[in-house]
Amino acid sequence: MRMRKVKWAVDYLTQSPHLVLEPQTLKGKWKDYLKVDSLHVEIGCGKGNYSLEMSNMYPDQGYVAIEKNESAAGMAVKKFDENEGNGHLALIQKDASDILSWFEIGEVDVIHLNFSDPWPKKRYAKRRLSSKSFLDQYKTILNKSGQIQMKTDNASLFEYSVLEFENNGFKMIEFSVDYRRETHNEDVLTEYEEKFVKKNQPIYRCVWEKI
Amino acid sequence: MRMRKVKWAVDYLTQSPHLVLEPQTLKGKWKDYLKVDSLHVEIGCGKGNYSLEMSNMYPDQGYVAIEKNESAAGMAVKKFDENEGNGHLALIQKDASDILSWFEIGEVDVIHLNFSDPWPKKRYAKRRLSSKSFLDQYKTILNKSGQIQMKTDNASLFEYSVLEFENNGFKMIEFSVDYRRETHNEDVLTEYEEKFVKKNQPIYRCVWEKI
Repeated sequence: MRMRKVKWAVDYLTQSPHLVLEPQTLKGKWKDYLKVDSLHVEIGCGKGNYSLEMSNMYPDQGYVAIEKNESAAGMAVKKFDENEGNGHLALIQKDASDILSWFEIGEVDVIHLNFSDPWPKKRYAKRRLSSKSFLDQYKTILNKSGQIQMKTDNASLFEYSVLEFENNGFKMIEFSVDYRRETHNEDVLTEYEEKFVKKNQPIYRCVWEKI
Repeated sequence: MRMRKVKWAVDYLTQSPHLVLEPQTLKGKWKDYLKVDSLHVEIGCGKGNYSLEMSNMYPDQGYVAIEKNESAAGMAVKKFDENEGNGHLALIQKDASDILSWFEIGEVDVIHLNFSDPWPKKRYAKRRLSSKSFLDQYKTILNKSGQIQMKTDNASLFEYSVLEFENNGFKMIEFSVDYRRETHNEDVLTEYEEKFVKKNQPIYRCVWEKI
Protein backbone atom coordinates (compact mmCIF):
# COMPACT_ATOMS: atom_id res chain seq x y z
CA MET A 1 0.00 0.00 0.00
CA ARG A 2 1.47 3.36 -1.03
CA MET A 3 0.98 6.38 1.25
CA ARG A 4 1.85 10.08 1.41
CA LYS A 5 4.64 11.39 3.58
CA VAL A 6 3.41 12.06 7.12
CA LYS A 7 5.80 14.57 8.66
CA TRP A 8 5.12 13.90 12.34
CA ALA A 9 5.58 10.17 11.81
CA VAL A 10 8.89 10.59 10.00
CA ASP A 11 10.10 12.93 12.77
CA TYR A 12 8.91 10.55 15.48
CA LEU A 13 10.45 7.41 14.00
CA THR A 14 14.06 7.69 15.14
CA GLN A 15 13.12 8.65 18.71
CA SER A 16 11.23 5.42 19.31
CA PRO A 17 12.79 2.77 21.54
CA HIS A 18 11.07 0.15 19.36
CA LEU A 19 13.08 1.12 16.28
CA VAL A 20 16.15 -1.06 15.74
CA LEU A 21 18.60 1.07 13.78
CA GLU A 22 21.27 -1.59 13.29
CA PRO A 23 19.43 -4.92 13.04
CA GLN A 24 22.61 -6.76 12.00
CA THR A 25 23.90 -6.33 15.57
CA LEU A 26 21.01 -8.50 16.80
CA LYS A 27 21.58 -11.31 14.29
CA GLY A 28 21.18 -14.60 16.17
CA LYS A 29 20.10 -12.77 19.34
CA TRP A 30 16.55 -11.65 18.64
CA LYS A 31 14.83 -14.07 21.01
CA ASP A 32 17.06 -12.94 23.87
CA TYR A 33 16.60 -9.30 22.93
CA LEU A 34 12.81 -9.61 22.86
CA LYS A 35 12.71 -12.11 25.77
CA VAL A 36 10.54 -14.60 23.89
CA ASP A 37 10.44 -18.29 22.96
CA SER A 38 9.61 -17.91 19.29
CA LEU A 39 10.33 -15.32 16.68
CA HIS A 40 7.81 -13.95 14.18
CA VAL A 41 8.76 -11.55 11.39
CA GLU A 42 6.17 -9.48 9.52
CA ILE A 43 7.53 -8.16 6.25
CA GLY A 44 5.73 -5.01 5.13
CA CYS A 45 3.88 -4.25 8.37
CA GLY A 46 2.37 -0.94 7.19
CA LYS A 47 0.95 0.91 10.18
CA GLY A 48 1.82 -2.00 12.44
CA ASN A 49 -1.54 -3.08 13.78
CA TYR A 50 -1.08 -6.76 12.96
CA SER A 51 2.27 -7.24 14.72
CA LEU A 52 1.10 -5.14 17.67
CA GLU A 53 -2.14 -7.01 18.30
CA MET A 54 -0.64 -10.43 17.61
CA SER A 55 2.21 -9.77 20.05
CA ASN A 56 -0.30 -8.72 22.70
CA MET A 57 -2.37 -11.85 22.07
CA TYR A 58 0.68 -14.14 22.13
CA PRO A 59 3.17 -12.67 24.63
CA ASP A 60 5.57 -15.63 24.28
CA GLN A 61 5.99 -14.75 20.58
CA GLY A 62 8.26 -11.87 19.64
CA TYR A 63 7.33 -9.79 16.59
CA VAL A 64 9.85 -8.04 14.38
CA ALA A 65 7.93 -5.76 12.03
CA ILE A 66 9.71 -4.62 8.86
CA GLU A 67 8.50 -1.58 6.93
CA LYS A 68 10.56 0.43 4.51
CA ASN A 69 8.14 3.37 4.22
CA GLU A 70 9.21 5.99 6.80
CA SER A 71 5.76 7.42 7.43
CA ALA A 72 4.11 4.03 7.96
CA ALA A 73 7.04 2.87 10.11
CA GLY A 74 6.78 6.04 12.24
CA MET A 75 3.06 5.50 12.79
CA ALA A 76 3.70 1.87 13.67
CA VAL A 77 6.36 2.56 16.33
CA LYS A 78 4.21 5.29 17.87
CA LYS A 79 1.52 2.64 18.38
CA PHE A 80 4.13 0.22 19.74
CA ASP A 81 5.37 2.86 22.21
CA GLU A 82 1.83 3.61 23.43
CA ASN A 83 0.89 -0.06 23.71
CA GLU A 84 -0.52 -1.10 27.06
CA GLY A 85 -0.47 -4.82 26.28
CA ASN A 86 2.26 -7.37 26.94
CA GLY A 87 3.62 -7.48 23.39
CA HIS A 88 7.30 -8.00 22.67
CA LEU A 89 8.01 -5.98 19.57
CA ALA A 90 10.62 -4.28 17.45
CA LEU A 91 10.62 -2.50 14.10
CA ILE A 92 13.16 -2.35 11.30
CA GLN A 93 12.69 0.51 8.85
CA LYS A 94 14.63 -0.88 5.90
CA ASP A 95 14.15 -2.73 2.62
CA ALA A 96 13.56 -6.45 3.23
CA SER A 97 16.03 -7.44 0.52
CA ASP A 98 18.73 -7.25 3.24
CA ILE A 99 16.94 -9.71 5.50
CA LEU A 100 19.78 -12.26 5.46
CA SER A 101 22.08 -9.81 7.22
CA TRP A 102 19.64 -9.32 10.11
CA PHE A 103 18.63 -12.90 10.98
CA GLU A 104 20.74 -15.99 11.60
CA ILE A 105 20.22 -19.23 9.67
CA GLY A 106 17.20 -20.98 11.21
CA GLU A 107 16.50 -18.17 13.69
CA VAL A 108 12.93 -17.38 12.62
CA ASP A 109 9.82 -19.44 13.42
CA VAL A 110 7.16 -17.70 11.34
CA ILE A 111 7.21 -15.13 8.55
CA HIS A 112 4.05 -13.11 7.87
CA LEU A 113 3.29 -11.54 4.50
CA ASN A 114 0.15 -9.43 4.83
CA PHE A 115 -1.32 -7.62 1.83
CA SER A 116 2.04 -7.20 0.15
CA ASP A 117 2.46 -4.87 -2.80
CA PRO A 118 1.31 -6.93 -5.82
CA TRP A 119 3.72 -5.28 -8.30
CA PRO A 120 1.30 -6.21 -11.11
CA LYS A 121 3.63 -5.52 -14.02
CA LYS A 122 5.57 -8.60 -15.06
CA ARG A 123 8.85 -6.70 -15.30
CA TYR A 124 8.63 -5.94 -11.57
CA ALA A 125 7.76 -9.54 -10.58
CA LYS A 126 11.12 -9.87 -8.81
CA ARG A 127 10.05 -7.19 -6.33
CA ARG A 128 7.11 -9.26 -5.12
CA LEU A 129 7.80 -10.54 -1.60
CA SER A 130 6.78 -14.04 -2.73
CA SER A 131 9.17 -14.25 -5.68
CA LYS A 132 11.81 -16.98 -5.80
CA SER A 133 14.75 -14.87 -4.60
CA PHE A 134 12.81 -13.82 -1.49
CA LEU A 135 11.60 -17.38 -0.87
CA ASP A 136 15.19 -18.61 -0.96
CA GLN A 137 16.12 -16.05 1.70
CA TYR A 138 13.12 -16.96 3.85
CA LYS A 139 14.13 -20.62 3.68
CA THR A 140 17.55 -19.71 5.04
CA ILE A 141 16.36 -17.78 8.08
CA LEU A 142 13.42 -20.09 8.91
CA ASN A 143 14.00 -23.00 11.29
CA LYS A 144 13.37 -26.50 10.02
CA SER A 145 9.64 -26.54 10.77
CA GLY A 146 9.35 -22.83 10.01
CA GLN A 147 6.21 -21.41 8.42
CA ILE A 148 5.22 -18.63 6.09
CA GLN A 149 1.72 -17.21 6.46
CA MET A 150 0.34 -15.06 3.68
CA LYS A 151 -2.87 -13.05 3.38
CA THR A 152 -3.93 -10.92 0.43
CA ASP A 153 -6.97 -9.47 -1.30
CA ASN A 154 -5.19 -9.57 -4.65
CA ALA A 155 -6.17 -12.57 -6.80
CA SER A 156 -3.26 -12.22 -9.23
CA LEU A 157 -0.66 -11.95 -6.47
CA PHE A 158 -2.20 -14.93 -4.70
CA GLU A 159 -2.15 -17.07 -7.85
CA TYR A 160 1.44 -16.10 -8.59
CA SER A 161 2.50 -16.79 -5.01
CA VAL A 162 0.87 -20.20 -4.68
CA LEU A 163 2.71 -21.46 -7.78
CA GLU A 164 5.97 -19.79 -6.71
CA PHE A 165 5.88 -21.51 -3.30
CA GLU A 166 4.90 -24.81 -4.99
CA ASN A 167 7.97 -24.62 -7.22
CA ASN A 168 10.47 -23.55 -4.58
CA GLY A 169 10.50 -26.05 -1.76
CA PHE A 170 7.47 -25.23 0.34
CA LYS A 171 4.52 -27.41 1.28
CA MET A 172 1.07 -25.89 1.66
CA ILE A 173 -0.54 -26.81 4.99
CA GLU A 174 -3.45 -24.34 5.18
CA PHE A 175 -5.38 -22.84 2.27
CA SER A 176 -8.37 -20.55 2.04
CA VAL A 177 -9.96 -18.59 -0.80
CA ASP A 178 -12.29 -16.72 1.58
CA TYR A 179 -10.62 -16.77 4.99
CA ARG A 180 -13.03 -14.42 6.74
CA ARG A 181 -16.20 -16.27 5.84
CA GLU A 182 -15.47 -18.16 9.04
CA THR A 183 -14.50 -16.65 12.39
CA HIS A 184 -10.75 -16.69 13.05
CA ASN A 185 -10.28 -14.97 16.37
CA GLU A 186 -6.78 -16.46 16.58
CA ASP A 187 -5.59 -14.17 13.77
CA VAL A 188 -5.71 -10.36 13.84
CA LEU A 189 -7.09 -8.32 10.94
CA THR A 190 -4.72 -5.76 9.44
CA GLU A 191 -5.99 -2.19 8.82
CA TYR A 192 -6.11 -3.00 5.11
CA GLU A 193 -7.89 -6.31 5.67
CA GLU A 194 -10.68 -4.63 7.67
CA LYS A 195 -11.60 -2.48 4.69
CA PHE A 196 -11.90 -5.50 2.42
CA VAL A 197 -13.90 -7.52 4.91
CA LYS A 198 -16.36 -4.59 5.26
CA LYS A 199 -16.77 -4.56 1.47
CA ASN A 200 -17.41 -8.33 1.57
CA GLN A 201 -14.42 -9.05 -0.64
CA PRO A 202 -12.64 -12.35 -0.13
CA ILE A 203 -9.36 -12.62 1.75
CA TYR A 204 -7.04 -15.26 0.30
CA ARG A 205 -4.74 -16.99 2.77
CA CYS A 206 -2.13 -19.72 2.75
CA VAL A 207 0.30 -21.22 5.22
CA TRP A 208 3.38 -23.10 3.99
CA GLU A 209 6.06 -25.13 5.71
CA LYS A 210 9.62 -25.67 4.55
CA ILE A 211 9.97 -29.08 2.89
CA MET B 1 -25.67 -31.27 -9.17
CA ARG B 2 -28.84 -33.18 -8.24
CA MET B 3 -31.70 -33.34 -10.74
CA ARG B 4 -35.19 -34.78 -11.08
CA LYS B 5 -35.86 -37.88 -13.11
CA VAL B 6 -36.42 -37.03 -16.77
CA LYS B 7 -38.35 -39.93 -18.28
CA TRP B 8 -37.53 -39.40 -21.95
CA ALA B 9 -33.82 -39.18 -21.13
CA VAL B 10 -33.84 -42.39 -19.10
CA ASP B 11 -35.72 -44.15 -21.93
CA TYR B 12 -33.36 -42.76 -24.56
CA LEU B 13 -30.14 -43.63 -22.73
CA THR B 14 -29.72 -47.31 -23.60
CA GLN B 15 -30.54 -46.78 -27.30
CA SER B 16 -27.63 -44.43 -27.83
CA PRO B 17 -24.59 -45.66 -29.76
CA HIS B 18 -22.48 -43.39 -27.55
CA LEU B 19 -23.34 -45.33 -24.39
CA VAL B 20 -20.75 -47.93 -23.46
CA LEU B 21 -22.60 -50.57 -21.47
CA GLU B 22 -19.58 -52.72 -20.57
CA PRO B 23 -16.64 -50.34 -20.24
CA GLN B 24 -14.38 -53.05 -18.81
CA THR B 25 -14.31 -54.65 -22.30
CA LEU B 26 -12.55 -51.54 -23.62
CA LYS B 27 -9.90 -51.44 -20.87
CA GLY B 28 -6.58 -50.62 -22.55
CA LYS B 29 -8.31 -50.09 -25.93
CA TRP B 30 -10.03 -46.73 -25.57
CA LYS B 31 -7.75 -44.79 -27.90
CA ASP B 32 -8.25 -47.37 -30.65
CA TYR B 33 -11.99 -47.47 -30.01
CA LEU B 34 -12.33 -43.68 -30.24
CA LYS B 35 -9.64 -43.34 -32.97
CA VAL B 36 -7.71 -40.66 -31.08
CA ASP B 37 -4.17 -39.87 -29.92
CA SER B 38 -4.97 -38.87 -26.37
CA LEU B 39 -7.61 -39.85 -23.87
CA HIS B 40 -9.58 -37.44 -21.68
CA VAL B 41 -12.00 -38.59 -19.01
CA GLU B 42 -14.61 -36.29 -17.49
CA ILE B 43 -15.95 -37.64 -14.22
CA GLY B 44 -19.42 -36.31 -13.46
CA CYS B 45 -20.23 -34.85 -16.89
CA GLY B 46 -23.80 -33.82 -16.05
CA LYS B 47 -25.64 -32.95 -19.27
CA GLY B 48 -22.46 -33.46 -21.24
CA ASN B 49 -21.82 -30.06 -22.77
CA TYR B 50 -18.19 -29.84 -21.68
CA SER B 51 -17.04 -33.16 -23.13
CA LEU B 52 -19.06 -32.57 -26.29
CA GLU B 53 -17.70 -29.11 -27.05
CA MET B 54 -14.15 -29.94 -26.01
CA SER B 55 -14.12 -33.01 -28.23
CA ASN B 56 -15.35 -30.91 -31.16
CA MET B 57 -12.67 -28.31 -30.49
CA TYR B 58 -9.91 -30.91 -30.15
CA PRO B 59 -10.75 -33.78 -32.53
CA ASP B 60 -7.47 -35.61 -31.79
CA GLN B 61 -8.57 -35.94 -28.15
CA GLY B 62 -11.12 -38.60 -27.23
CA TYR B 63 -13.54 -37.83 -24.40
CA VAL B 64 -15.04 -40.46 -22.15
CA ALA B 65 -17.78 -38.82 -20.10
CA ILE B 66 -18.86 -40.54 -16.89
CA GLU B 67 -22.19 -39.74 -15.27
CA LYS B 68 -24.04 -41.95 -12.81
CA ASN B 69 -27.33 -40.04 -12.95
CA GLU B 70 -29.52 -41.71 -15.58
CA SER B 71 -31.44 -38.59 -16.58
CA ALA B 72 -28.34 -36.43 -17.01
CA ALA B 73 -26.56 -39.26 -18.83
CA GLY B 74 -29.54 -39.68 -21.19
CA MET B 75 -29.58 -35.96 -22.00
CA ALA B 76 -25.83 -36.05 -22.59
CA VAL B 77 -25.85 -38.96 -25.06
CA LYS B 78 -28.77 -37.40 -26.95
CA LYS B 79 -26.55 -34.34 -27.50
CA PHE B 80 -23.65 -36.59 -28.47
CA ASP B 81 -25.86 -38.41 -31.01
CA GLU B 82 -27.06 -35.15 -32.56
CA ASN B 83 -23.58 -33.61 -32.65
CA GLU B 84 -22.52 -32.28 -36.03
CA GLY B 85 -18.91 -31.66 -35.00
CA ASN B 86 -15.91 -33.96 -35.28
CA GLY B 87 -15.87 -35.03 -31.62
CA HIS B 88 -14.82 -38.51 -30.58
CA LEU B 89 -16.96 -39.36 -27.58
CA ALA B 90 -18.35 -42.06 -25.37
CA LEU B 91 -20.37 -42.13 -22.17
CA ILE B 92 -20.33 -44.48 -19.19
CA GLN B 93 -23.42 -44.34 -16.99
CA LYS B 94 -21.96 -45.81 -13.81
CA ASP B 95 -20.48 -44.81 -10.46
CA ALA B 96 -16.88 -43.63 -10.85
CA SER B 97 -15.71 -45.72 -7.90
CA ASP B 98 -15.25 -48.58 -10.39
CA ILE B 99 -12.93 -46.57 -12.62
CA LEU B 100 -9.96 -48.92 -12.18
CA SER B 101 -11.86 -51.71 -13.90
CA TRP B 102 -12.51 -49.58 -17.01
CA PHE B 103 -9.10 -48.05 -17.71
CA GLU B 104 -5.65 -49.65 -17.96
CA ILE B 105 -2.70 -48.45 -15.86
CA GLY B 106 -1.35 -45.27 -17.50
CA GLU B 107 -4.03 -45.25 -20.23
CA VAL B 108 -5.48 -41.80 -19.51
CA ASP B 109 -3.89 -38.43 -20.40
CA VAL B 110 -6.21 -35.98 -18.66
CA ILE B 111 -8.97 -36.29 -16.05
CA HIS B 112 -11.53 -33.47 -15.78
CA LEU B 113 -13.47 -32.77 -12.59
CA ASN B 114 -16.03 -30.07 -13.31
CA PHE B 115 -18.28 -28.71 -10.57
CA SER B 116 -18.28 -31.97 -8.66
CA ASP B 117 -20.74 -32.59 -5.86
CA PRO B 118 -19.14 -30.90 -2.80
CA TRP B 119 -20.56 -33.39 -0.25
CA PRO B 120 -20.29 -30.65 2.39
CA LYS B 121 -20.80 -32.85 5.45
CA LYS B 122 -17.54 -34.17 6.84
CA ARG B 123 -18.89 -37.69 7.24
CA TYR B 124 -19.36 -37.86 3.45
CA ALA B 125 -15.89 -36.48 2.62
CA LYS B 126 -14.89 -39.85 1.15
CA ARG B 127 -17.50 -39.42 -1.57
CA ARG B 128 -15.84 -36.25 -2.87
CA LEU B 129 -14.19 -36.97 -6.23
CA SER B 130 -11.00 -35.29 -4.96
CA SER B 131 -10.64 -37.41 -1.81
CA LYS B 132 -7.54 -39.52 -1.30
CA SER B 133 -9.02 -42.85 -2.40
CA PHE B 134 -10.13 -41.34 -5.72
CA LEU B 135 -6.78 -39.58 -6.20
CA ASP B 136 -4.99 -42.90 -5.73
CA GLN B 137 -7.14 -44.43 -8.46
CA TYR B 138 -6.57 -41.47 -10.79
CA LYS B 139 -2.81 -41.82 -10.30
CA THR B 140 -3.04 -45.43 -11.43
CA ILE B 141 -4.89 -44.79 -14.68
CA LEU B 142 -3.03 -41.57 -15.60
CA ASN B 143 0.11 -41.80 -17.71
CA LYS B 144 3.34 -40.51 -16.25
CA SER B 145 2.84 -36.89 -17.30
CA GLY B 146 -0.92 -37.17 -16.82
CA GLN B 147 -2.96 -34.23 -15.59
CA ILE B 148 -6.06 -33.58 -13.54
CA GLN B 149 -7.99 -30.40 -14.28
CA MET B 150 -10.56 -29.21 -11.76
CA LYS B 151 -13.08 -26.38 -11.87
CA THR B 152 -15.58 -25.50 -9.16
CA ASP B 153 -17.64 -22.64 -7.78
CA ASN B 154 -17.52 -24.14 -4.30
CA ALA B 155 -14.89 -22.52 -2.04
CA SER B 156 -14.96 -25.27 0.58
CA LEU B 157 -14.58 -28.06 -1.97
CA PHE B 158 -11.75 -26.17 -3.65
CA GLU B 159 -9.90 -25.64 -0.38
CA TYR B 160 -10.32 -29.28 0.59
CA SER B 161 -9.20 -30.46 -2.85
CA VAL B 162 -6.08 -28.29 -3.07
CA LEU B 163 -4.79 -29.68 0.24
CA GLU B 164 -5.80 -33.25 -0.66
CA PHE B 165 -3.86 -33.10 -3.95
CA GLU B 166 -0.91 -31.46 -2.13
CA ASN B 167 -0.77 -34.36 0.32
CA ASN B 168 -1.20 -37.17 -2.17
CA GLY B 169 1.49 -36.98 -4.81
CA PHE B 170 0.36 -34.26 -7.19
CA LYS B 171 2.09 -31.06 -8.21
CA MET B 172 0.04 -27.96 -8.97
CA ILE B 173 0.94 -26.45 -12.36
CA GLU B 174 -1.94 -24.01 -12.93
CA PHE B 175 -3.96 -22.17 -10.31
CA SER B 176 -6.72 -19.61 -10.47
CA VAL B 177 -9.13 -18.18 -7.90
CA ASP B 178 -11.16 -16.37 -10.58
CA TYR B 179 -10.57 -18.24 -13.83
CA ARG B 180 -13.15 -16.38 -15.93
CA ARG B 181 -11.89 -12.87 -15.16
CA GLU B 182 -9.67 -13.50 -18.15
CA THR B 183 -10.73 -14.94 -21.50
CA HIS B 184 -10.03 -18.65 -21.85
CA ASN B 185 -11.37 -19.64 -25.24
CA GLU B 186 -9.33 -22.83 -25.06
CA ASP B 187 -11.61 -24.20 -22.34
CA VAL B 188 -15.36 -24.74 -22.69
CA LEU B 189 -17.84 -23.53 -20.05
CA THR B 190 -20.08 -26.19 -18.54
CA GLU B 191 -23.83 -25.53 -18.24
CA TYR B 192 -23.35 -25.02 -14.51
CA GLU B 193 -20.36 -22.74 -14.99
CA GLU B 194 -22.31 -20.42 -17.33
CA LYS B 195 -24.81 -19.70 -14.56
CA PHE B 196 -22.07 -18.72 -12.14
CA VAL B 197 -20.23 -16.58 -14.62
CA LYS B 198 -23.47 -14.70 -15.38
CA LYS B 199 -23.86 -14.04 -11.63
CA ASN B 200 -20.26 -12.76 -11.54
CA GLN B 201 -19.24 -15.44 -9.06
CA PRO B 202 -15.65 -16.64 -9.20
CA ILE B 203 -14.70 -19.95 -10.79
CA TYR B 204 -11.84 -21.70 -9.00
CA ARG B 205 -9.55 -23.83 -11.14
CA CYS B 206 -6.46 -25.93 -10.74
CA VAL B 207 -4.38 -28.23 -12.90
CA TRP B 208 -2.15 -30.85 -11.31
CA GLU B 209 0.44 -33.25 -12.65
CA LYS B 210 1.47 -36.59 -11.19
CA ILE B 211 4.75 -36.27 -9.27
